[in-house]
Amino acid sequence: MTSTEKASVCVLGTGLIGGSLLRAAVGAGYDAWGYNRSPAGAQAAQADGFDVTEELPTALTRAAAADALIVLAVPMPAVGHLLSAVATFAPDCDLTDVVSVKAPVAEAVRKEGLSARYVGGHPMAGTAESGWGATDSDLFLDAVWAVGVDEGTHVEPWTRVVRLALDCGSVVVPVVAAEHDRAVARISHLPHVLAEALALAGASGGELALGLAAGSFRDGTRVAGTAPDLVRAICEPNSDALLAVLEETLTVLGAARDSLRANNSLADLVAAGHDARQRYETARRWEITDIRPGDHNWLANLRDAGQRGGVITRPA
Amino acid sequence: MTSTEKASVCVLGTGLIGGSLLRAAVGAGYDAWGYNRSPAGAQAAQADGFDVTEELPTALTRAAAADALIVLAVPMPAVGHLLSAVATFAPDCDLTDVVSVKAPVAEAVRKEGLSARYVGGHPMAGTAESGWGATDSDLFLDAVWAVGVDEGTHVEPWTRVVRLALDCGSVVVPVVAAEHDRAVARISHLPHVLAEALALAGASGGELALGLAAGSFRDGTRVAGTAPDLVRAICEPNSDALLAVLEETLTVLGAARDSLRANNSLADLVAAGHDARQRYETARRWEITDIRPGDHNWLANLRDAGQRGGVITRPA
Repeated sequence: MTSTEKASVCVLGTGLIGGSLLRAAVGAGYDAWGYNRSPAGAQAAQADGFDVTEELPTALTRAAAADALIVLAVPMPAVGHLLSAVATFAPDCDLTDVVSVKAPVAEAVRKEGLSARYVGGHPMAGTAESGWGATDSDLFLDAVWAVGVDEGTHVEPWTRVVRLALDCGSVVVPVVAAEHDRAVARISHLPHVLAEALALAGASGGELALGLAAGSFRDGTRVAGTAPDLVRAICEPNSDALLAVLEETLTVLGAARDSLRANNSLADLVAAGHDARQRYETARRWEITDIRPGDHNWLANLRDAGQRGGVITRPA
Repeated sequence: MTSTEKASVCVLGTGLIGGSLLRAAVGAGYDAWGYNRSPAGAQAAQADGFDVTEELPTALTRAAAADALIVLAVPMPAVGHLLSAVATFAPDCDLTDVVSVKAPVAEAVRKEGLSARYVGGHPMAGTAESGWGATDSDLFLDAVWAVGVDEGTHVEPWTRVVRLALDCGSVVVPVVAAEHDRAVARISHLPHVLAEALALAGASGGELALGLAAGSFRDGTRVAGTAPDLVRAICEPNSDALLAVLEETLTVLGAARDSLRANNSLADLVAAGHDARQRYETARRWEITDIRPGDHNWLANLRDAGQRGGVITRPA
């Protein structure tokens, strides 16, 4: 495929993730434009030379005419409103999203009757910043981009979404919605919750404690700097999975407390935690090469490969 | 003072902190040498041109002859053995330490009858690495170095310890042992405990979760990469203070769990955590300029200044 054959891309929401995606897509040669609800955000993008409107119908009518891939790039609470507009103005467009949870988006898509054209996505990238001012065309470089392989997924939207993720510099992890949501509760939403709690514990120590804080506190609380509304929009729609892992963590921490109190020992926690961090550091991705979209059982085979650490690094 | 007037320094233990201190002191023009228990560690330092012996009496006899400032730079469990040797071979030397807790070291020093010459210290610097191979003469640059102002502290060892910390590129926070230990439980030991628990939660999600993990998990688990024995040696001697803040954090996390379950809301945790992180980011040190060692109430005044975010940036 040459760059002229790339599908058009319509990005709805040009904050940190959507705006960075617009930059990356344009940089990769896509015909891409965007919509942003806030005039200030749209104007900031326009000032940087990007084609971003504040008029949702305008962006979507153009998407329908160009057979564009539409990307929902807003926090979960704003997804329903956008989907209703997509159903009105561009119901036949391929559709994906970059929202932090997948099952609730899939359910909202289903309610609008758009499931046949939809493939969920989630680039595992971000910073504590937000808004167009924080956008970066390299945000997705060497990142992992989860792409849905749920039952019923159609080949065409799937290959387009994978292609876009790869063209933005990411590798693709195939995953079904429910497993994605349970995994990100562990590696993205729980880190937010613990960072907030750690920040609170530090600040409760006053100026002295904050003045002595160094690397471990700085790194451990970094994501507590994220805007509160955004943290809630990321974590709360995944409350079932987050509750389960939070409960698990309360049990682990409670056991550590008991062991420290009874035996002055953190041996079990520290041994297990160090081993877990080693598993993370030594985890190696491997390339999925033998599964083609549309093959018999391709979705189940991709799901299985993703569970075992497989990634897609090249277009099918 | 010119560099030729600087006191000699004898560093006991040349791991990450002690070895970096030896490098920094030599770089700042001190006549400095070290002792390391492990022959491999001592030889690695020698190979880099540093004067490090495996013979503790040799290092200490030289310290006594040179009226050196002795620095204990070993984990808490090894402190008692070193102090007993100091009492035998160099009982009249000024003495400090860079151990992660202060009250237990002060108590061990008292048992050896060395309190009059002792001032506790703790540079708030480190990495997840350990051993001579990880040492760095710039480790203390722009770091905060806690220096004891406990009742009974004598001027001379105090000024020498402060001078050494400043010459290594740090600023000095004056603090008494018990308050130091409570503060580091919040900003150093709790971060270790939470990092271990987070690493465990991530690894329990298998290859898929670890494969999707990005910045928030990487940063939140970084210190779980520290050697388990070292984490235990840092945290367990401070168990009273750590237990108190761990209990506090279990309460905060339990309330967040309850709120998420009952109202699908993390509003309270996220608002408070974000506010706390803002307090950390906007905390500004101010320079203590008007308190001279030996002045009436100098220890109490320094303690009070340290509690309010004051730091010492220049020798008295």
